[in-house]
Amino acid sequence: MAEVKLIGAKYSPFCFRLELALKLKGIHEYEYLEQDLINKGPILLHYNPVHKKVPVLVHGENPIIESLAILEYIDETWPSAPSLLPKHPYPRSQARFWAKFADEKCAAGAWDTYWRLKGEKKDKAIEVAIERFEHLEKLIQGKKFFGTGGDDEEEGREERIGYLDLVLGWIPLWVEVMEEIGEMKLLDPQKFPGLCRWGREFVEVPVIKECLPSRETLVQYFTIATPMMRAHFT
Amino acid sequence: MAEVKLIGAKYSPFCFRLELALKLKGIHEYEYLEQDLINKGPILLHYNPVHKKVPVLVHGENPIIESLAILEYIDETWPSAPSLLPKHPYPRSQARFWAKFADEKCAAGAWDTYWRLKGEKKDKAIEVAIERFEHLEKLIQGKKFFGTGGDDEEEGREERIGYLDLVLGWIPLWVEVMEEIGEMKLLDPQKFPGLCRWGREFVEVPVIKECLPSRETLVQYFTIATPMMRAHFT
Repeated sequence: MAEVKLIGAKYSPFCFRLELALKLKGIHEYEYLEQDLINKGPILLHYNPVHKKVPVLVHGENPIIESLAILEYIDETWPSAPSLLPKHPYPRSQARFWAKFADEKCAAGAWDTYWRLKGEKKDKAIEVAIERFEHLEKLIQGKKFFGTGGDDEEEGREERIGYLDLVLGWIPLWVEVMEEIGEMKLLDPQKFPGLCRWGREFVEVPVIKECLPSRETLVQYFTIATPMMRAHFT
Repeated sequence: MAEVKLIGAKYSPFCFRLELALKLKGIHEYEYLEQDLINKGPILLHYNPVHKKVPVLVHGENPIIESLAILEYIDETWPSAPSLLPKHPYPRSQARFWAKFADEKCAAGAWDTYWRLKGEKKDKAIEVAIERFEHLEKLIQGKKFFGTGGDDEEEGREERIGYLDLVLGWIPLWVEVMEEIGEMKLLDPQKFPGLCRWGREFVEVPVIKECLPSRETLVQYFTIATPMMRAHFT
């Protein structure tokens, strides 16, 4: 097996999902290279000259970029069970649809609420984000895990963690920290019982627990990044 | 074979790529359902209730949504040659990386220049879009077609149309119309000789030519949509 490196940052939900994927595949022997995202180092600029962003998976000397593409790469390169994506084209397409929705609507929506200070624009952003999370609440009804997010015909798949659980894996811890520092509520347990139940059980799965950054790491990042990012939004 | 429907709109570059993919796969027997995007019809709302957008591929009764996910679905469902994506995980990951770059940076960047009226913001948007297209200019050097956009080890692949050519297939005609109506220049042939050469050859390939909307269709769409969209940007 060629050498595996993960160029990442502990606060990043996009890196977190890749650590989970590697661990679920039984790839424990990789080099993890934590990046300082304010002073970007030569290794990041070398392997991701287009975007200059984490995460990057380096396999041998091949850099793989964009976390959803990396998840597919991991699944294709180490195809032994447990597979992350389902086998059949239709549930695969559903998994990809929901992953894009999760990143472009839910994650982007949650950050959008967080970076804004109080006021009408923040209230509107919270309303929009909550509407988007409602789709996830519907999706988790009757399932233990998200799996593919769709009608999955492979028996027992919804009883174990799949691609979409990894993609949404940031929700439990990251949203909690955002809500606290951002002084807002996105996931009210009364309104999102399924999503909150999933989150509680997800972070208790041993392999997930092992990869979760500490609450302090996240709080520290949010504290540093918040004034910089808010300057763009207000 | 289950019945295939494509819910689309002739001016949409995201629908165009799917018509190309179906034709390249030899799927000529499908129902094409043109949508009015101002008065959205019940079929679109039924099959894409989350985004209410084209394109949607309906196979049997299964709706597949998001054009990049649909391209992968088409490739997986009709795996016979010609394949759209390469077989090996690394060139596949490169194809997916560049497809995301093409949509989120190049296409979004080009529209951003177009919707804006004259002025400093438009000039800045043009500068940003041109920088992004420079990556594509580098990518096409030494190749007839984009193929995967990466180091593709499959012999002869760069001599035939692949996934990334379909994703970028809007460039030749759409950019020309944008430049004309938007009174601007994005792809100067002196600066982008490779991309312009690729565009000229691409639209002359018979299967592509057959699917290209007429210039009049695009001009008509741009004329209707422009005042509405510009209201958001100015």
